[in-house]
Amino acid sequence: MEFTARQIAEALNGSIEGDSGIKVTALSKIEEGRPGTLSFLANPKYTPHIYSTKASIVIVNKDFVPEKEIGATLIRVADAYSAFADLLEMYQQARGKPSGISKKAELAETAIIGKNVYLGDFVSVGKNAVIGDNALIYPNTTIGDNCKIGEGTKLFAGVTVYADCVVGSNCTLHAGVVIGADGFGFAPQQDKNYRKVPQIGNVVIEDNVEIGANTCIDRATLGSTRIRKGAIIDNLVQIAHNVEIGENTAVAAQTGISGSTKIGNNCILAGQTGFAGHLNIADGTIVTAQSGVGRNIKQENTIYEGSPAFRHKDFQISYIHFRRLGQLVQRVEELENKLKELSGD
Amino acid sequence: MEFTARQIAEALNGSIEGDSGIKVTALSKIEEGRPGTLSFLANPKYTPHIYSTKASIVIVNKDFVPEKEIGATLIRVADAYSAFADLLEMYQQARGKPSGISKKAELAETAIIGKNVYLGDFVSVGKNAVIGDNALIYPNTTIGDNCKIGEGTKLFAGVTVYADCVVGSNCTLHAGVVIGADGFGFAPQQDKNYRKVPQIGNVVIEDNVEIGANTCIDRATLGSTRIRKGAIIDNLVQIAHNVEIGENTAVAAQTGISGSTKIGNNCILAGQTGFAGHLNIADGTIVTAQSGVGRNIKQENTIYEGSPAFRHKDFQISYIHFRRLGQLVQRVEELENKLKELSGD
Amino acid sequence: MEFTARQIAEALNGSIEGDSGIKVTALSKIEEGRPGTLSFLANPKYTPHIYSTKASIVIVNKDFVPEKEIGATLIRVADAYSAFADLLEMYQQARGKPSGISKKAELAETAIIGKNVYLGDFVSVGKNAVIGDNALIYPNTTIGDNCKIGEGTKLFAGVTVYADCVVGSNCTLHAGVVIGADGFGFAPQQDKNYRKVPQIGNVVIEDNVEIGANTCIDRATLGSTRIRKGAIIDNLVQIAHNVEIGENTAVAAQTGISGSTKIGNNCILAGQTGFAGHLNIADGTIVTAQSGVGRNIKQENTIYEGSPAFRHKDFQISYIHFRRLGQLVQRVEELENKLKELSGD
Repeated sequence: MEFTARQIAEALNGSIEGDSGIKVTALSKIEEGRPGTLSFLANPKYTPHIYSTKASIVIVNKDFVPEKEIGATLIRVADAYSAFADLLEMYQQARGKPSGISKKAELAETAIIGKNVYLGDFVSVGKNAVIGDNALIYPNTTIGDNCKIGEGTKLFAGVTVYADCVVGSNCTLHAGVVIGADGFGFAPQQDKNYRKVPQIGNVVIEDNVEIGANTCIDRATLGSTRIRKGAIIDNLVQIAHNVEIGENTAVAAQTGISGSTKIGNNCILAGQTGFAGHLNIADGTIVTAQSGVGRNIKQENTIYEGSPAFRHKDFQISYIHFRRLGQLVQRVEELENKLKELSGD
Repeated sequence: MEFTARQIAEALNGSIEGDSGIKVTALSKIEEGRPGTLSFLANPKYTPHIYSTKASIVIVNKDFVPEKEIGATLIRVADAYSAFADLLEMYQQARGKPSGISKKAELAETAIIGKNVYLGDFVSVGKNAVIGDNALIYPNTTIGDNCKIGEGTKLFAGVTVYADCVVGSNCTLHAGVVIGADGFGFAPQQDKNYRKVPQIGNVVIEDNVEIGANTCIDRATLGSTRIRKGAIIDNLVQIAHNVEIGENTAVAAQTGISGSTKIGNNCILAGQTGFAGHLNIADGTIVTAQSGVGRNIKQENTIYEGSPAFRHKDFQISYIHFRRLGQLVQRVEELENKLKELSGD
Repeated sequence: MEFTARQIAEALNGSIEGDSGIKVTALSKIEEGRPGTLSFLANPKYTPHIYSTKASIVIVNKDFVPEKEIGATLIRVADAYSAFADLLEMYQQARGKPSGISKKAELAETAIIGKNVYLGDFVSVGKNAVIGDNALIYPNTTIGDNCKIGEGTKLFAGVTVYADCVVGSNCTLHAGVVIGADGFGFAPQQDKNYRKVPQIGNVVIEDNVEIGANTCIDRATLGSTRIRKGAIIDNLVQIAHNVEIGENTAVAAQTGISGSTKIGNNCILAGQTGFAGHLNIADGTIVTAQSGVGRNIKQENTIYEGSPAFRHKDFQISYIHFRRLGQLVQRVEELENKLKELSGD
């Protein structure tokens, strides 16, 4: 694939500054730009690189004002990041998708496979499972009995979907994801043994959800653990039984959410955060990295920090003083000494 | 399956209040109860739902006293939660188990497979491995050479058991579990390279142990990493080489235990806790979520919190003052100002 | 295998103290030594065990001075730990390696397989993938199109390597590792939906890298996520898109590193640590367990602790006072009371 600056500018509805005939064959990061590649500048932090990049073309925002000479041809667009994402998508689509059903896949007789489905080597599909049209199921994935996998959904290699679980349309589950393992439900007995509480519910993942590699979403004891549409979940996340994740909520890597907690819509849970069980977390809540939430959050659009977490602003104050705690102790000691003097002890 | 209130009351040795002929076909959570379903009330937090639930039957504790009219038929039993767990078990048993050996499984000639074993598609069983009677091994699982899998043990899809490891009877290993990967043992060299220390021990999992999805238990350098009987371990837990987990100890999700640490019996390690290496943790210890234990815990039945952790009660005091640290600093400032005035500076 | 003390002393260039004809057939930990086994003493913490061990032979440092009688034959060497590691290696090599290509493996026609490669059952190798000589690929592993796996590299069971990724020579990837899943890149839209940013880069793992079970290393948006030679990474670690891990850096279990962060050479990241995105961490940095780094670390060879982390020494002071915060508050209260008295209120 080879494109000129002119062709790209037309595709992106942009204007050219420099050599409109220059050709590129690949995309690059601006700090690693090579001749023959196209890059972009959106984050101002990377502006210095535009004066030294070897990329042949750089996409910039309309209002970008250079402070020095730039070697690359510029294409000015309304939103450089979004335009570059368009190009990434075009690039990825041009690469094509796997297709066909491997002879090494194993389907139960009663499984129903849609049109234009890809099933890789060593995929096992259980009884009465239904795979929607255009789904892509990569090798060594296991789909249990009675599962439903929606149209256009991708399951990368080594995914496990336990029996009776439902994955919506246009979802992406990355390698090693486990959907529907038993919730961690045990009743302590008087002899200190634990009695397992059977987990007979399932997991329902709505449409347009992305789930990162090796993330685990447990089935409900009863009813459903539910991931609502548009939620995005990173790698190695733990989602316990009967949890609900709201629409368009983002959950960063290694976060853990305990049983029956409901996370609202449009929340952002940063990496390695934790949530106790049976909580309600309001829409628009932001929790900073490594924080642990132990109580309900009722007010929308607030930020929490700390372990256990409290309001971010308050945490910031406490944290600043925590860092100087040695000085505070010294000040108290000085006060004590002065007071002793004053009181004539 | 359809049952009347009378049939269920008889099975649970309970007494009926309401329509003894009413029929149910499924189980439900009380807050999501639908006509034709049976629910239960054990946690007082959920009491308000009993007045509005649409469930046809609700199991309650003998001594439950309603404050308003209730639409559902009640079945009173000695312990509602336990009775409901009985029903869950009956429900699950009624669903049956997979059986037979898939033609797509691959067994070494020297492997020994017990009676009534299920081996799913693409299960690989190594040389001299022994699989006990009634074991269930789901698809895409790998069992290494010389492993022993006990009677009635379930290995869900995509599990890996490395060579020479032992899993007891009536254990459950969820999807993606890795048993017996090399411990993280490396000797730093003078040139700053690391030299790998071979890990020639194994993992021994005793009877009645449950291990959550994608949890990793490393093999010992020498000897065995050991999970004692009745321990329950959640998802995404890291258990390093030569660790021992005591009987009936519960380990919640995303906890990490470093090399050679011994966790006692009947401990509760909450989610995302961490343990340094070479520690001894006394029986009955409780560690709260996200805490990090860096020292031995010698006294039994204590609670630890914080990172690094100390006694829970002491942590609670420090934490409360941490949250108000800004106020404390202001109080010290005021003291300083007053003292200046007093001392006539 | 049976060896005399004399044979072992010769192999290790050591000197014997005791019965040079005594025979051993296995290795053991000193605290679990049995007759017929060989053990070692390197960590002084374990010295008391040498007087009670049942091991027939114990390897000790040249300068070890016993304080009581010892039953075992001693072999004195320059470095007991290193000598024992030599024996572990000899032991492991004697056990042999798996070999041959399973009839149940599935190779794309265009895949290139080196000499003396082991491919286990249900291994799927994609188009144009290249597997180097002497590589060992265990069952149920998936290698995507265009991947390169270096010479002598081991991929244990259930590993996934996505298309276009590169693994160097003499690497070890443990079971369940996922290399090359999409980075967590999404552009928030005005309607609060997220738009996925295609991740068209790859992962490059250089030579002599070890990666623990169920660890995830995401592919770059553009360019490469890179693990430099000699790095050692433990289980359940999250490495985001465009991260770089320096040479001989050690990353302990359950650590998470956010996008585009560069970790220097010879760093030690303890367990459950976290790193924000777009950071630069200087060579030789040590971060203690459960700490969270939110800023660049520019000075080499420093230690950081806390969440958010700051210099270890400073953290230690703050932490000590945090533990006694209740006492400090009492001291301030006393000061307030005394001052009230003094000022005659």
